[in-house]
Amino acid sequence: MTAHERSFHLGAFIWGVGHHGAAWRHPDTDLKGFTDFNFYKQIAEKAEAAKFDMIFFADRLAISDRYENRFDATLTFIPPVRLEPVSLLGALGAVTEKIGLAATASTSYNEPFTLARKFASLDHLTEGRIAWNIVTSTNDGEALNHNREQHFEHSERYARAKEFLEVVTSLWDSWEDDAIVLDQETPLFADPKKVHYLDHEGEWFQVRGPLNIPRPPQGHPIKIQAGSSPTGRDFAAASADVIFTAQPTLEKAQDFYQDIQQRLIKAGRPQGSLKIMPGVMPIIGSTPQEAKEKADYLEQLVDPIAGLALLSDSMNHDLSQYPLDGPLPPLTEIRGNQSRFKLVQALAEKEQLTLRDLGKRFGGTRSHRLLIGTPEEIAVNLQTWFLSEAADGFNIMPPYLPGGFTEFTDEVVPILQDLGLFRQDYHGSTLRDHLGLAKPANKFLQQKTV
Amino acid sequence: MTAHERSFHLGAFIWGVGHHGAAWRHPDTDLKGFTDFNFYKQIAEKAEAAKFDMIFFADRLAISDRYENRFDATLTFIPPVRLEPVSLLGALGAVTEKIGLAATASTSYNEPFTLARKFASLDHLTEGRIAWNIVTSTNDGEALNHNREQHFEHSERYARAKEFLEVVTSLWDSWEDDAIVLDQETPLFADPKKVHYLDHEGEWFQVRGPLNIPRPPQGHPIKIQAGSSPTGRDFAAASADVIFTAQPTLEKAQDFYQDIQQRLIKAGRPQGSLKIMPGVMPIIGSTPQEAKEKADYLEQLVDPIAGLALLSDSMNHDLSQYPLDGPLPPLTEIRGNQSRFKLVQALAEKEQLTLRDLGKRFGGTRSHRLLIGTPEEIAVNLQTWFLSEAADGFNIMPPYLPGGFTEFTDEVVPILQDLGLFRQDYHGSTLRDHLGLAKPANKFLQQKTV
Ligand SMILES: Cc1cc2nc3c(=O)[nH]c(=O)nc-3n(C[C@H](O)[C@H](O)[C@H](O)COP(=O)(O)O)c2cc1C
Ligand SMILES: Cc1cc2nc3c(=O)[nH]c(=O)nc-3n(C[C@H](O)[C@H](O)[C@H](O)COP(=O)(O)O)c2cc1C
Repeated sequence: MTAHERSFHLGAFIWGVGHHGAAWRHPDTDLKGFTDFNFYKQIAEKAEAAKFDMIFFADRLAISDRYENRFDATLTFIPPVRLEPVSLLGALGAVTEKIGLAATASTSYNEPFTLARKFASLDHLTEGRIAWNIVTSTNDGEALNHNREQHFEHSERYARAKEFLEVVTSLWDSWEDDAIVLDQETPLFADPKKVHYLDHEGEWFQVRGPLNIPRPPQGHPIKIQAGSSPTGRDFAAASADVIFTAQPTLEKAQDFYQDIQQRLIKAGRPQGSLKIMPGVMPIIGSTPQEAKEKADYLEQLVDPIAGLALLSDSMNHDLSQYPLDGPLPPLTEIRGNQSRFKLVQALAEKEQLTLRDLGKRFGGTRSHRLLIGTPEEIAVNLQTWFLSEAADGFNIMPPYLPGGFTEFTDEVVPILQDLGLFRQDYHGSTLRDHLGLAKPANKFLQQKTV
Repeated sequence: MTAHERSFHLGAFIWGVGHHGAAWRHPDTDLKGFTDFNFYKQIAEKAEAAKFDMIFFADRLAISDRYENRFDATLTFIPPVRLEPVSLLGALGAVTEKIGLAATASTSYNEPFTLARKFASLDHLTEGRIAWNIVTSTNDGEALNHNREQHFEHSERYARAKEFLEVVTSLWDSWEDDAIVLDQETPLFADPKKVHYLDHEGEWFQVRGPLNIPRPPQGHPIKIQAGSSPTGRDFAAASADVIFTAQPTLEKAQDFYQDIQQRLIKAGRPQGSLKIMPGVMPIIGSTPQEAKEKADYLEQLVDPIAGLALLSDSMNHDLSQYPLDGPLPPLTEIRGNQSRFKLVQALAEKEQLTLRDLGKRFGGTRSHRLLIGTPEEIAVNLQTWFLSEAADGFNIMPPYLPGGFTEFTDEVVPILQDLGLFRQDYHGSTLRDHLGLAKPANKFLQQKTV
């Protein structure tokens, strides 16, 4: 695969009023953003004007309270409130025209019929601009809000996710694209031969179908996956359109990229059918010095306890039990996000960090890549990653909002366009068009022709 | 309670491309409406221009296939597809400013945390314009899409609904109105003493909370209930803000109205805190004759099988097993919507209808009230019902869309305004303001002060 056949993609990855752990303390942050629709609308409009492929909203189903098993640290340092992303997509769909809209939804705490229907509905509402970030969730706080004592074990939650996705895609396929006849005279609304029961009886779900909405305009809304474990990667290679990932260095990102290509081939899917988009938090200054100062300023706003609270939550393990000025203990078995934890362990070991240091570091970027520099430096760095097959594009993680994002759209995007790397305008109208991905075949149609 | 203390309310009750069973066959129906956002947007804008309290979307979680246990009749006669209403509310919230937005969601096939969060989020997005129509769902088709073989029994589903609602309202209350401090210096995002765990351990649900979104602007989004059984009425009297109901005659509606007032007193709630809004399908002509012709034209578009398929679905009982030209058999135990069935039974007996006749009749209005006349006749009829304490307002059920609705907003609403019955403009900005209902107290605050 040569570089010129590939295309470069950009997502705006939105989390609260900014990704940085201390975003809400930054004087340029718009604090209305926690609950105000206009805040999100402005960001989506900015992203659309900059021709981003999509805007993406992460989600969690509980407020963090792993640290000391209380939520006090969370309420002190890290705002745990945000709008529910699936509802938000509908609203943003109504005020944008081209940009893709992605939301996280968990396979552990939803029912496939409900989820299939909501995403299909949104895909109709937006005429084909929707994506679903498929997550399995990571911790017990989320379980406790949904009738469970503990979160599912890793293999169990991926088994459930796999079956969940199979049901969801079958529901999306349950109306063939041309099932609706609309013959008012006869009358015949739809052709019963082109509408299908699933009669799914699996280990986790029994779902009869069909869905009560026609097939989504994209066939299937875009499927995003962000798992990093071998199981997570195989799951993505088998069925995702896009992978989100946290990759701290060029080398690690290249390894990940290659690994995914191998798994894609094994899964029998064509090259280029799965786009890899690492996250990156840009801190932009008009000089390298100014960028550095901005990063330092943000870092000093982070309280180490905030970071340890976030990390405890991600690990699903209370770090308050270890001395603050001691090292990260050599934990092997954690029940939360193991992949993220491995990144953290590697960092702590390499730089000999105490828990206090680590809290400060994780609180800032949650182990995503920090990219500090001038607009030119940042554009060239992204280009290098793209050309070195470390990424098909990036999830831009604004440290604070809206300023931390508009700096990128105003200053970095034009350079990426001048470099011939990024589109000057949208060419199609669906998110599949932007990503250059074909509409998936309908499985019921395939069964028929076999 | 004297009449002048009461206020008159209007909802636009939207179902597919119109309520009439043959709506999609009407030449003035916009068939894009099944999936097109602009269709809904235009209707919402019309309703807002006419100062409606709200626009409401019904929902079902399966396509009908009770009749002959196949979906062929449904696909032939009655379009079973529609947009998912909760996602739709977000989109409509973004393009309207004042009107209330209501969606149906089932307590039998959702989790309280998920639902509380979505409705809270929508209430923030719209700055306080959201309502939830709390339904328990009615048939096995819905069960089969959600891991169950059969729908819950009547008493079981109301027990679940009661507990579900208790959890949802507690989650909405879990952040006190002034919990968020936003002190960037100290730092202190929120006051931990004003955020509450629920630690709910009930028969149906275990939910710890708190919710991860601040208390909704309305305190609780407006709660609508549409149950008609004694259990359903008690449930509404205990906790709803609005009752939707199907009342065929003035006398029956008055009885229902009085019955609810009694239950309201028993529940210890003040008069006027629960608004009763029967459905009515207006068929409007410039002369009585023209209105009658319109109604006849619509009626002849309905196929009796369509009506029997709808009725089978509502009853959760297959009517295809009985002779078409025989009477409705004397069924006593049905597992579906019993209240609706009683209305149907009374009608069939009174008018000596065969199943074929009944299919035609139910297919048209599903036992809601049909009101055929000139704009003046219709306005005066609604006024009479209101003044006779048969209703606090109405859910207008357009037979077909958009024309069947805009006739009402353009021709009947101005008369209602001239009669001094209906508002000329919105006075507040939330749906609670429109309905004249106070923001509910926070249960955690009440516990504190006790
Ligand atoms: C960019 C990115 C975004 C993610 N967004 C979410 C999210 O919104 N919600 C969530 O529960 N997990 C999220 N995750 C976590 C992943 O879904 C996944 O649980 C995690 O990477 C661990 O993968 P593994 O279980 O395969 O080890 C995200 C991960 C990445 C890299
Ligand atoms: C105006 C109106 C609207 C309704 N909307 C819905 C709906 O959207 N979805 C649904 O499942 N049931 C709906 N229902 C049915 C009621 O929720 C309820 O199940 C039915 O009235 C039977 O009440 P009962 O169980 O107390 O006898 C509606 C009923 C009425 C009168």
